[in-house]
Amino acid sequence: MKDITAEIITIGDEILIGQITDTNSQWISSELDLLGIKTHKKTSIRDEEQAILNELEEAFKRSDLIIVTGGLGPTKDDITKKTLAKFFGVKLKRDQEVLDHVRSLFEKRGRQMNKNNIGQADIPENCQVLKNNWGTAPGMLFRQGGSILVSMPGVPVEMKNLMKNEVFPIVVQEFETPIIKHRVVKTMGIGESDLMSVIGNWENKLPEHIKLAYLPRLGQVRLRLSGKGNNADHLNKDLDLQVEELLKLIPKYFYAYGEVEFEDAVAQLLKEKNISVSTAESCTGGNIAKRLTSFGGSSQFFKGGIIAYSNEIKINELNVESADINSKGAVSEEVVMQMAENIRLKFKTDIGLSSSGIAGPDGGTPEKPVGTIWIALSDSKGTISKKLTLGSNRKMNIELTTLNILNLLRGRIQGWI
Amino acid sequence: MKDITAEIITIGDEILIGQITDTNSQWISSELDLLGIKTHKKTSIRDEEQAILNELEEAFKRSDLIIVTGGLGPTKDDITKKTLAKFFGVKLKRDQEVLDHVRSLFEKRGRQMNKNNIGQADIPENCQVLKNNWGTAPGMLFRQGGSILVSMPGVPVEMKNLMKNEVFPIVVQEFETPIIKHRVVKTMGIGESDLMSVIGNWENKLPEHIKLAYLPRLGQVRLRLSGKGNNADHLNKDLDLQVEELLKLIPKYFYAYGEVEFEDAVAQLLKEKNISVSTAESCTGGNIAKRLTSFGGSSQFFKGGIIAYSNEIKINELNVESADINSKGAVSEEVVMQMAENIRLKFKTDIGLSSSGIAGPDGGTPEKPVGTIWIALSDSKGTISKKLTLGSNRKMNIELTTLNILNLLRGRIQGWI
Repeated sequence: MKDITAEIITIGDEILIGQITDTNSQWISSELDLLGIKTHKKTSIRDEEQAILNELEEAFKRSDLIIVTGGLGPTKDDITKKTLAKFFGVKLKRDQEVLDHVRSLFEKRGRQMNKNNIGQADIPENCQVLKNNWGTAPGMLFRQGGSILVSMPGVPVEMKNLMKNEVFPIVVQEFETPIIKHRVVKTMGIGESDLMSVIGNWENKLPEHIKLAYLPRLGQVRLRLSGKGNNADHLNKDLDLQVEELLKLIPKYFYAYGEVEFEDAVAQLLKEKNISVSTAESCTGGNIAKRLTSFGGSSQFFKGGIIAYSNEIKINELNVESADINSKGAVSEEVVMQMAENIRLKFKTDIGLSSSGIAGPDGGTPEKPVGTIWIALSDSKGTISKKLTLGSNRKMNIELTTLNILNLLRGRIQGWI
Repeated sequence: MKDITAEIITIGDEILIGQITDTNSQWISSELDLLGIKTHKKTSIRDEEQAILNELEEAFKRSDLIIVTGGLGPTKDDITKKTLAKFFGVKLKRDQEVLDHVRSLFEKRGRQMNKNNIGQADIPENCQVLKNNWGTAPGMLFRQGGSILVSMPGVPVEMKNLMKNEVFPIVVQEFETPIIKHRVVKTMGIGESDLMSVIGNWENKLPEHIKLAYLPRLGQVRLRLSGKGNNADHLNKDLDLQVEELLKLIPKYFYAYGEVEFEDAVAQLLKEKNISVSTAESCTGGNIAKRLTSFGGSSQFFKGGIIAYSNEIKINELNVESADINSKGAVSEEVVMQMAENIRLKFKTDIGLSSSGIAGPDGGTPEKPVGTIWIALSDSKGTISKKLTLGSNRKMNIELTTLNILNLLRGRIQGWI
């Protein structure tokens, strides 16, 4: 079987001037890789007609699949569409379906359409429209000499939606892709090198046709198993067997398969077990609640919370003993435990969660340096607390604290804490 | 003066497989831009000899400055150095200074050198060594037909160190770099195409040497003015004059220059004016508070908030009239106004903010479809409210609602709402 060669072209001065990082092409190539398609080249060029024309010319010589992003906005500096028409030697025509879609988007948002917006419905005559439900610029697909070129907006949410719903189905149908199957096992609460020690023996015994990749992110590590073969059923069986073995080694760390976000896995658990939660947040400033409520249907388990940034609110609203704040400080085990217990009682939930710490970048003392953070969880069995010792980056401290408390919650529900 | 054309080539399978995001080239091009050097192309290719040879061939035809990163590690798949030697038709020779440096690094770390490490001191005969104090692979500089090619390791800290200390001084000395100055003007509350209509006349009258770029992001548009000339003082004066004219057209939309985040601009305003805030959130689930508290020092103006997800908490904690919830619904102007006013009074702050809406993806009705969201702001002058009609994406609705309410807050403080 012939390998399909893919390439990605991103168009836009903002990338070449270094104002934004091109994360689109990373996402695209990793998704193509999952389909067994190798990206052999990525190119970024300016919003300049000749540069675009040259690149298109070369791209059709060297690649079966050409993914182009960017330069499709309604403003003057966005010239991709016009240049594509010139490259193929065709005119622009107004597409009624696209126009209706743009109009309905504007109506929904209660805004006036102007001439530039209407122009977004003008597309090269030879293109196949890929419907962009998330924005006004349509995706466009062109064919030439056995190759396919796809042009999409650079806005990540629009591009990803178009790729998943429109482009990948066409690619899989029209190209002969090898059989590649994946399993993604997501873990929380263990670092990459510790995880390597825990699963090292299992990894060394993996069969030749199954590869493992460690994909670390803030606070978590995803494990991706990729199997390649010529029989989908055998491949699935082999992978499931390996995953089964893997899970035996990491019962506390594993939280979900695939693309499930950590907070969504925890939310799902709360929903299934019908457990209600409330939050009393100081240093996380609402982020714990925000994460729990990013889940559609969270009103089933999340009742509410109090963000007690000032000591006055900690005392008045959460009944924290002012004597404890005075003697131990707001960032202390005593205070954070009272916060968790009292929010649970006040909001009548099964579980109460709390945080109090010095998120930084300032406000540290020799005894309590920046990054000193207490978290607590209270339920009918009692109240447990944990001290975190993090770094000096405020945003990262808030994120890591939130992940830690959600992991405490997960452990409590699953019964291993 | 002739423009210097620069390009960046990154070599490495891990980028093309999508395992890592190429942040190096973003950093390099933004640094080159500050020196007045335009990057006209970025390319990522695999660790394959022929692909590298082809790219080098083309690069010397089109660019004065070629920055190559990656493929210099001690392992077999790193073939950049060998391929560069082949391209220039020269042999590798052992460089004693580099060897001494590698040896001293290994001694410092208390590790044994192996054959591969010694090999890092082998460099193409025609290259000028750029000393890499942070790692074992040296930077290498080559000259051919008036162009300069620099090859560096892909490890960010090594690459940045080499660029700053070795490459930039040579570039500035050997090329005649133009003077380029930028101004970034950030706007909120107006879409890209509406903004174009508002500032179109001004844009059309911009002098030839000043260019404008629209850089949209969720809910906001950044405007970047770039001026080019041979006198820095004149250029700064020209740009400041244009920015002055621009700001007259967008007094309500402009919120900051440069790289300031929107929530930080609002936080800065609260801090400067010594205005205290509290929040009563329903559909935003803590996100308004989270944004306000991402600012270091936010405890000066943010006192706290109540996340009232359930109606019970809206009634008990925020004193919302249960009759209004029953007759108008929790998502209504009446309820959201009471939430904003009552949190302000309860938490004794200058301003109270509130949100209540149907964030989705479910929960809509014919009269109140998903995306129907009310926000309110209360201060001593009264309480104002606004209805938003957004889409069906939950996360986006929460973000857009938060941006809208922070913009309401900004307008109220600045006196135009």
